[in-house]
Amino acid sequence: MTAPLAAPDAPVTGTFLDVGTTLLVLDLLGIVVFAASGGLVGVRKELDLFGVLVLAGVTGLGGGLLRDVLIGVVPPAALVDWRYLLAPAVAGVAVFAFHPTFGRMEKVITVLDAAGLALFCVAGALKAMDYGVGPLPAALMGMTTAVGGGMMRDVLAGRVPVVFRGELYATPALGGAAVAVVGTSGWLPFDPPVVVVSILAALVALVWRLLAVWRNWQAPLPKGPASV
Amino acid sequence: MTAPLAAPDAPVTGTFLDVGTTLLVLDLLGIVVFAASGGLVGVRKELDLFGVLVLAGVTGLGGGLLRDVLIGVVPPAALVDWRYLLAPAVAGVAVFAFHPTFGRMEKVITVLDAAGLALFCVAGALKAMDYGVGPLPAALMGMTTAVGGGMMRDVLAGRVPVVFRGELYATPALGGAAVAVVGTSGWLPFDPPVVVVSILAALVALVWRLLAVWRNWQAPLPKGPASV
Amino acid sequence: MTAPLAAPDAPVTGTFLDVGTTLLVLDLLGIVVFAASGGLVGVRKELDLFGVLVLAGVTGLGGGLLRDVLIGVVPPAALVDWRYLLAPAVAGVAVFAFHPTFGRMEKVITVLDAAGLALFCVAGALKAMDYGVGPLPAALMGMTTAVGGGMMRDVLAGRVPVVFRGELYATPALGGAAVAVVGTSGWLPFDPPVVVVSILAALVALVWRLLAVWRNWQAPLPKGPASV
Repeated sequence: MTAPLAAPDAPVTGTFLDVGTTLLVLDLLGIVVFAASGGLVGVRKELDLFGVLVLAGVTGLGGGLLRDVLIGVVPPAALVDWRYLLAPAVAGVAVFAFHPTFGRMEKVITVLDAAGLALFCVAGALKAMDYGVGPLPAALMGMTTAVGGGMMRDVLAGRVPVVFRGELYATPALGGAAVAVVGTSGWLPFDPPVVVVSILAALVALVWRLLAVWRNWQAPLPKGPASV
Repeated sequence: MTAPLAAPDAPVTGTFLDVGTTLLVLDLLGIVVFAASGGLVGVRKELDLFGVLVLAGVTGLGGGLLRDVLIGVVPPAALVDWRYLLAPAVAGVAVFAFHPTFGRMEKVITVLDAAGLALFCVAGALKAMDYGVGPLPAALMGMTTAVGGGMMRDVLAGRVPVVFRGELYATPALGGAAVAVVGTSGWLPFDPPVVVVSILAALVALVWRLLAVWRNWQAPLPKGPASV
Repeated sequence: MTAPLAAPDAPVTGTFLDVGTTLLVLDLLGIVVFAASGGLVGVRKELDLFGVLVLAGVTGLGGGLLRDVLIGVVPPAALVDWRYLLAPAVAGVAVFAFHPTFGRMEKVITVLDAAGLALFCVAGALKAMDYGVGPLPAALMGMTTAVGGGMMRDVLAGRVPVVFRGELYATPALGGAAVAVVGTSGWLPFDPPVVVVSILAALVALVWRLLAVWRNWQAPLPKGPASV
């Protein structure tokens, strides 16, 4: 997926062609969904069109940008391939213009956002593995790809990241990323195709996240009063 | 403009010498103005000298640092050339000591800030082009150079970026950056000197911004109540 | 200290082996202390376990990550060596589970935090020097390593960085980093061993910080009302 400009020192990826293609499709799908959620936060905070577009772009691309900068892929894919820039811009303008419609679709958005989470954690983990990062940090990079953009969105919108507030959101992303890492690590006695691993890992994150929403699972909170 | 340490892998810039010189001067001028505005926010938030200096440094250098990290220029110019570090420090100390004077010069500061905006968007776009980034991301990098430091300043000062709040600020920067990109892209039937393109692009951003201030042009806000 | 993956283009460090070993130990000690302080902020803000772990990780590793990205060490050491990831995770879980105990140890934490500050500013400055950054930016990178994680923690926790609020915290870090830079710069008429310089520089920062706490030294605040 990486244009030559993006990674003159990229590892030879001939044997990973399927990884690359899978990554591109996963990335673009997830970006649009996340950008729409980011744009909606901007509308609710009564930001102007520029603010809505920045929140859309940051939410859609921020996690991947952070991952790319940390693993040394510069310029990041989002600055090399115009489709990565177009996707959140279109989503942001659409949300700006039709936000009452988007706002009413809260259930749909929650499901799509779970899908975006699942896609991003897998894409992020596989990309980190592809660039030679070890298994543990690669799983973390997968989770960062999935939740980093939303955290930047919240900081820019002036609120503590919602992902810190008890909702089970980051854990499913870490779970999906872990499955993707284990499946492509060569640790297994067999060597499953990357596409199969990707789908399985994304399903783990997706189902986990949807179950958490449906059953209202919460991340544990500290017990007892905190001394100040 | 780039010292060897900054970019051992920089493209051969022999034919771009004028770009480099132009960039250095533009950069330093813009940094001082932006740093002063950042320091003033720190004073108004009643931060201590260190806070004022950090806000001055972040506002003056943050956009360029973000651009350099994203396009892969590390260490960034601001960490290689001591003039980039001295400029915001001097501006920050000056604002800390003489803030009532600066505070009374609101109109002057608005004009100088518009000049800084114009200088940064052009310098940022040209530098991104110089490092082989494509036209669309280069224009975005120009805008990021111009508004990124101010956004970081606002996040550190605990407020939603003012650039999201209706004032027409980022759009002129994007316009100036776009002119700079088009003028140096080779798309035109003639090949204007970089200095001419730079001046023209900066004037576009400057006049646009000043007209926006003078006529109180606002960026569009979302229509209708946002469902929460 | 740098694994081959982290820095394929690292300078030959054969003669700096003692620097590397010193850096690793300093880094890990400081990370645990800082992570505990970050986790405690998360508990006090009533964040969930994930939020506490992110604040622990960001506070412990954020300054070093920022330094590494800025000086071009990617993937940063924290993503290459699993000990860097394990340290803040353990600290974060411990604080989450036993926060009343940690909360009562405020004096102990203040002293340990001062030690972390001293260790980080020296480790950060030496690492920047080791990668060829000049003396002035290397001292700044040392200070950034020491205070950057805490600033990120505060931004994520929704408050203006406490380090901007009058307490003398960043200045001792800058002082320690400056001693480390001068001691290893080759400017002195003699050539002190790196370990000696490191210990001396850390002591400068530590004593300075503890004196500031004990005597309630404050960073200067702007004088007079700020016009708004």
